[in-house]
Parts: sequence; structure tokens; C-alpha cells
Amino acid sequence: MGRITTRTPVQRVTLDGDQVSVVRRPDTVTVEEPLQVRVDGRPLTVTMRTPGDDFDLALGFLVGEGLVSGADDVRTLMHCLDEDADGHPTYNVVDVALSPGVVLPEVSLERSFASTSACGVCGTTSIDAVRRRSPYDVAADRTPIAPQVLADLPEALAREQAAFERTGGLHAAGLFTAAGELLVVREDVGRHNAVDKVVGWAAREHRLPLAGHVLVVSSRASFELTQKAVMAGIPCLAAISAPSSLAIELAEQSGLTLVGFLRPPRLSVYAGGDRLGL
Amino acid sequence: MGRITTRTPVQRVTLDGDQVSVVRRPDTVTVEEPLQVRVDGRPLTVTMRTPGDDFDLALGFLVGEGLVSGADDVRTLMHCLDEDADGHPTYNVVDVALSPGVVLPEVSLERSFASTSACGVCGTTSIDAVRRRSPYDVAADRTPIAPQVLADLPEALAREQAAFERTGGLHAAGLFTAAGELLVVREDVGRHNAVDKVVGWAAREHRLPLAGHVLVVSSRASFELTQKAVMAGIPCLAAISAPSSLAIELAEQSGLTLVGFLRPPRLSVYAGGDRLGL
Repeated sequence: MGRITTRTPVQRVTLDGDQVSVVRRPDTVTVEEPLQVRVDGRPLTVTMRTPGDDFDLALGFLVGEGLVSGADDVRTLMHCLDEDADGHPTYNVVDVALSPGVVLPEVSLERSFASTSACGVCGTTSIDAVRRRSPYDVAADRTPIAPQVLADLPEALAREQAAFERTGGLHAAGLFTAAGELLVVREDVGRHNAVDKVVGWAAREHRLPLAGHVLVVSSRASFELTQKAVMAGIPCLAAISAPSSLAIELAEQSGLTLVGFLRPPRLSVYAGGDRLGL
Repeated sequence: MGRITTRTPVQRVTLDGDQVSVVRRPDTVTVEEPLQVRVDGRPLTVTMRTPGDDFDLALGFLVGEGLVSGADDVRTLMHCLDEDADGHPTYNVVDVALSPGVVLPEVSLERSFASTSACGVCGTTSIDAVRRRSPYDVAADRTPIAPQVLADLPEALAREQAAFERTGGLHAAGLFTAAGELLVVREDVGRHNAVDKVVGWAAREHRLPLAGHVLVVSSRASFELTQKAVMAGIPCLAAISAPSSLAIELAEQSGLTLVGFLRPPRLSVYAGGDRLGL
């Protein structure tokens, strides 16, 4: 449980013209396992994730999808203690019990999208078809964030990112205050999982909405990650790599500050530059 | 339609101590749009993808999930010609009509996993819970592949990868013969989409199973990508970055050769080294 990396034999090959030299040695790789999230006994989704912080992952996922608004909507989070063929517990199912009176929307995630109209995404803009409505108004959060503060965050993230160095296979997400204070870092094979774990942690700490905070991701900024930031009330998403067109569009519509290529001393601002004083 | 990149204004910031210099200029970013796949009128899935090769994406996805075994199972692929709010066509729905007599399994993708037992993934090994059965026996494919051939593939992939250089936001997947001949390269914001587009192309060309072929991905090797290779009958998956634990496990069980960190003159072999003569 919570095993982030594992050891595996690898054949390291070096080529030199027709010469092939092989060294067999143990290598450290990132653990990937399926996690099923069940809500009140009903299967909701399966994600391929790195074990650890599974309750935060489940809670953050529910917040990101707009299915619950915070920890108060959840009564308990439990691992379903199943065993694999060798009799070892797998911890690959999380059961979420909702608080009394809280009702999950009647649709599964897939169906909620698929059934928006007779022809699915037809007759609507594509962003409206996949967008979830946030309970928080990110645009109204006017906390200023200094570009100089952003410039220090990648190094702070990297310092905390212990596992990545060993495997090269993990994405990281880090939550910072507007003053640059690091609150939490989570890693996962899936970048969406890393963000869910951060948001779930914040929800469990009753910190939602995350006004005046900055989310830094070691990856690109996709629509999905941008949406997760907006759903948690985070006013600034900064990615080490590139944003997508739909991430920029959502950021503009939501009043989110979207930074890409955060590689000090340079960074690129795609939306919401006013929050940075630009 | 098929727009891979778009232009967007960006504020490029350079920091020098307390000095903040900003240059506003147009930037090229990767397009990300939702694609809904419908089968015989029934919504099946939605993926966030880079437009282009949507029919191949839909077909490759169905093959990867084991829902169809090739192009013969499909009668027609059509774009549902919907319009956005400005009256422009969006091309964000693909309708798949199955051939007479072909019946899709009764389950949606999510539910097919969730309903494997009373407790979802309980009582089974995690890999069995998410694994699809391939119609092809990859282990029986004994085509030798020379490590020296693999070493040439990243450069060949990069040469074809026109869009990546401009945006930094695209993943690539390339299909090669065992002799190193490049057959097709596809790019997408989602690495799983890039592989689906490659497999869908091959299905449409009636090339399945892809015995004696090598799939090269510009990303990490996840369980999901490894499964897509096995489902298409590809005996060798080579990733530029790291593999996950479950990718290695699936490769071992399936008889797939799994190469990671393909960075000539070095590469790491995690499974199936015998096919490389190691």
C-alpha cells in the first residue's frame, strides 16, 4: 500500500556500431495500479494511478467532476480490503459514503457528457459540452501574484519530488500560496491523478475554495487540468510545459491565470496576466 | 477540420531580479477538442484529442478496447456535421456503423470494468481486472528485431513530427517494420490518441495483426499504451521515456518486447529481450 516505486530487472543496452553490450541490473520503476472509486456502493470510475493518497485521489476526483463540493459532503472514505491471487491485500478499491442528504447527480461521468443532447456534442460549442460548472468564482479572486514568486516554484516542486529522479516516470502537482509557500506536493503516473490528490488533500483540510493559491504542474496544461483548478477555486495554474488551445479558452472564460513554459527566468502567460500585474 | 495547431497571443515574460520585461506576441499552441465516438447511434466515449484522423482514432480505439477486431467489422465511419454557436462545423462527433451481424458487447467501457465482480476489482489480480483479451498471440510472433534498428527510430520519428517542434505540446506514435521502415506517424495532445490513430490507420489498411512491427512512442509506456500494442498484435513497444510497473507486467505476460528510455546509443529492455537477440 502506498508503494510509489518498485524494483525490476532491466537489460541496459549500449550500442557501438555493430557491438551490443548488455548489463543486467535492477531498475526502479513507477508503480501503476488500477483504482476503482465507488460511491455509496455504486462503481463510478476506474483510474490507473500510483498507489498512495487514494482517499485524497477519490475526494479530489469527485470535487473536480463537480459531484461533491467538499469534505463535508462525504461521510467516510474506506479501502475495500480485497486480496489478490497470492492473498495479499490490493487496496485498489475506495468506497465513498456520502453524507446524509447528499445525492450524487443521476448520471455517470461518461453518460453525463454523452446525453447532453440528442446528438451529444452537436449544437453547442465544444467547450460547453465538456465543461463542468464550478461552485467558485475564480475571476472574482483578485489576490495579486508576483511573477518573481512563480519563478521560484519549479525548484521548490523539484526539491519535493523525490520519486521522479529515480524513475523518470512520475508527474507532480504542487500547491502554493500566493507568497510562494509550498503546501503540498503529490506525484502520480497520471498528471490528472496528481492534481486530484492535491485537491483532495485541500478538501480534506477544509481549504476549498483555494482562493489566492497557485497550482504548479510538472507537465503540460490540458483542458482537464485547467478544469480541475477552476473547480477547486484555484486562480492560477502554472505548467512547466505547453498549454492546449482548450485550456487557454477555459482559462479566459473562467478568469484563471494560465502560465506555460514556467522555466525561470522565463515564463509565458496565456490568460489572466492582470493578476500578475502585466 | 484537422487543425493541429492554432495561433494565440502570449505574454512572454523574462525576469531579471526585480525587473520584469514583457513581450506580447503570437504563439503556436496545440489544438485540443472533445471527440465523441458513437456506435450505431449510441454514445460510447468522449476523448480530448487533437483534431485530424478522427476516423482512424475511432477505429483504433474500438480495436484497442477489443470491441471490434478490424475494419471489416465496421460498415461506415461518418462525421456528424454539427455546428458551433458561430455556425461553423465542429466535426467533434464520429458515428460508427457496424457491419451486419457485428454486435458490440453489451457493456460500456466503464461498466465493463466495474461489473467484473460484485466488488469490482476485488478478488482478482489488478491486471486481470483491467486487461482486455487480445485476439492476437503476440508471443507467437518470432520476428527478430535488431537493437541497431531500434536505435534509428527516434530520429526517424522526430523527423516526421512536424508539429511538436512548434508547440511542445504533442505526443507522437510511429509504426515501423522490423527492418526500420517508417509506415505512419500520428501526433496528438493525448498519447493514447496518437496510438489509436496509428492502430486505426493500420486497421483501415487491413494490416492487422501487426506482426513483425515496432511501435515507438515519444512518451512514457503506461499500461494503457502497452495494452493497445498487444490488442493490435504489435510484438515490440519502444518508449522514449520510462515504463510503468503494470506495463512491464503486461508485457511479460503477453510476450511483448518492452523497451524504455530509447535514447541512442542506449536503451533499456524491460521484457522480451530474446526478440532482440539479448
